[in-house]
Amino acid sequence: MAEALANKKILLVKRPKGLPAKDDFKMVEGTVPEPKTGEVLVRTLYLSVDPYMRGRMNDQKSYVPPYPLNEVITGGVIGEVIQSRASELDEGDLVIGNYGWQTMQTVDSAQLRKIDETIAPVTTALGILGMTGLTAYFGLLDIGRPKPGETVVVSGAAGAVGMTVGQIAKIKGCRVVGIAGSDRKIQYLLDELGFDAAINYKTTKELKKALAEACPEGVDIYFDNVGGEISDAVMRLLNPHARIPVCGQISLYNLEKADIGPRIQPLLLINKALMKGFIVSDYAARFDEGTNQLAEWLKQGKLKYEENIVEGFENTIDAFLGLFKGENLGKQLVKVAEPSKRPVKE
Amino acid sequence: MAEALANKKILLVKRPKGLPAKDDFKMVEGTVPEPKTGEVLVRTLYLSVDPYMRGRMNDQKSYVPPYPLNEVITGGVIGEVIQSRASELDEGDLVIGNYGWQTMQTVDSAQLRKIDETIAPVTTALGILGMTGLTAYFGLLDIGRPKPGETVVVSGAAGAVGMTVGQIAKIKGCRVVGIAGSDRKIQYLLDELGFDAAINYKTTKELKKALAEACPEGVDIYFDNVGGEISDAVMRLLNPHARIPVCGQISLYNLEKADIGPRIQPLLLINKALMKGFIVSDYAARFDEGTNQLAEWLKQGKLKYEENIVEGFENTIDAFLGLFKGENLGKQLVKVAEPSKRPVKE
Repeated sequence: MAEALANKKILLVKRPKGLPAKDDFKMVEGTVPEPKTGEVLVRTLYLSVDPYMRGRMNDQKSYVPPYPLNEVITGGVIGEVIQSRASELDEGDLVIGNYGWQTMQTVDSAQLRKIDETIAPVTTALGILGMTGLTAYFGLLDIGRPKPGETVVVSGAAGAVGMTVGQIAKIKGCRVVGIAGSDRKIQYLLDELGFDAAINYKTTKELKKALAEACPEGVDIYFDNVGGEISDAVMRLLNPHARIPVCGQISLYNLEKADIGPRIQPLLLINKALMKGFIVSDYAARFDEGTNQLAEWLKQGKLKYEENIVEGFENTIDAFLGLFKGENLGKQLVKVAEPSKRPVKE
Repeated sequence: MAEALANKKILLVKRPKGLPAKDDFKMVEGTVPEPKTGEVLVRTLYLSVDPYMRGRMNDQKSYVPPYPLNEVITGGVIGEVIQSRASELDEGDLVIGNYGWQTMQTVDSAQLRKIDETIAPVTTALGILGMTGLTAYFGLLDIGRPKPGETVVVSGAAGAVGMTVGQIAKIKGCRVVGIAGSDRKIQYLLDELGFDAAINYKTTKELKKALAEACPEGVDIYFDNVGGEISDAVMRLLNPHARIPVCGQISLYNLEKADIGPRIQPLLLINKALMKGFIVSDYAARFDEGTNQLAEWLKQGKLKYEENIVEGFENTIDAFLGLFKGENLGKQLVKVAEPSKRPVKE
């Protein structure tokens, strides 16, 4: 059994200053404890790397506590149960949970959810049917409350959350305008996802003018994944009673001091607009509703998703750093291992 | 009848640059038309001058349309019906409506509401039982949603809206911290209204530190009347799931260009906080509920109010300009005329 418990894990060893660097992390080898009653031993198959993790690397108050130094980084993980001492999970079950960037772990079964492999590919549990899909679903529908004919602008539109937001907004009958950072992404949003307009903020000289053209009737919902000057430009186009779910601020995560910009309170006042920060766990009580609806749309072909899968646990850090280069289209995952041979489906 | 129709009115003749000046306005004499069917002739008794009117003097998109140049300025007015051609109003009735800064007007009776003089002094219809009271009521209760034990910070705390917000928050069992601009106001908030703490932003060197001491458990609701650096300081103390009704931005109304400050979206995100601009007319359908509740609290002695009444129509402009000097405690009104002799109450 000793060999089965061999483990590699990634620790946060330094708090990044600005953009994270490779030497902020360290990969170490070790072993994991054998499972006790109620626990299972899980072999990692896929890891999720997400922009919000950058915030947790700072030693400051945030919506989730900071990662402790010299401990394993935690996030969304899909694994396979290889030894079970919990009645509700069997060997071979695929599970998802929020645990470590490591190849093997011993986990309390209460922290895991069994993945139904019949609905969609297993990796969707970390994306469109998991955290990113639910983030888009609740942020747009609960805070944004789109109505048919309204205009929805989404920044970070080609990211895993952004592309889901845009598609749900289309399902709800809205005009959808995406903002993203490469021509490949813009083409994808227009051609594959049916966005009504998409703007490359890196090559567009007058962002506000381009936005005004793309939003001739103003902006009713701005789903903000990025913050900074892109958001400043969108905020100038708000309609009365606009709603702004603040989902992420990737442009600011790596700044070393507070960002300065035009104050937005007057715009919120003038437009009687609502802005709300949120985190998907605020909606934990409604995850089943969200997952079921997303799965139904997926089955009906109304939702597409993209995954960018890097192979090999040793590439996890690079995959994480790549998030801040704006290269990934859709959900960024790391494939750590193949699942055991699955029973053949009928 | 011709004499009865003689009228003085105040026009906006120039759009103010920065702080309004006397020569942005002009008082002219004239007459008003005789009432047609459905209209009444109203003699003005009290005018309300309010900070939000400054916004309407700019020629820019705002939550209410700009005042047209060379036309009479409109706002909250209490008057007495002196001639009625509307079945639902009689001569001698006291009415309130949103009409002109003038001594006499002919008004469609549908735009007027009859004041019940038995509830409270008639001027309360422009204050605690009118626009300012309802603004406090709906902003705090509908957007702020105070819970017992929470900490509520209100800026512009000694203004008509601010002092009502603080008192309603006390009724709801909250810790209430006010921010105002003179020692007289601070003493009033503490001694007369029972605020738990009050901070003079003009004499406090380290506002953020003073706020942190006044809010040892953080800020759950920030009712923002002022904007600018005062708001920046409060925003640093938000608790998770904080709510920020944005009611006014008096510190910014007279700025000639967009104000710059630390971006607040990261704070909203980190704290999963809600910020919402609003205007009292958003709640028009619920005005009866608000007025009845405010009147009940008033009768129970749970709510106090202050009025600062300037005598004489010719002092209207000075009264308006005074709002931006931070001198007024409570609601600023102009008394234009005495009502006719009222029937003696039993």
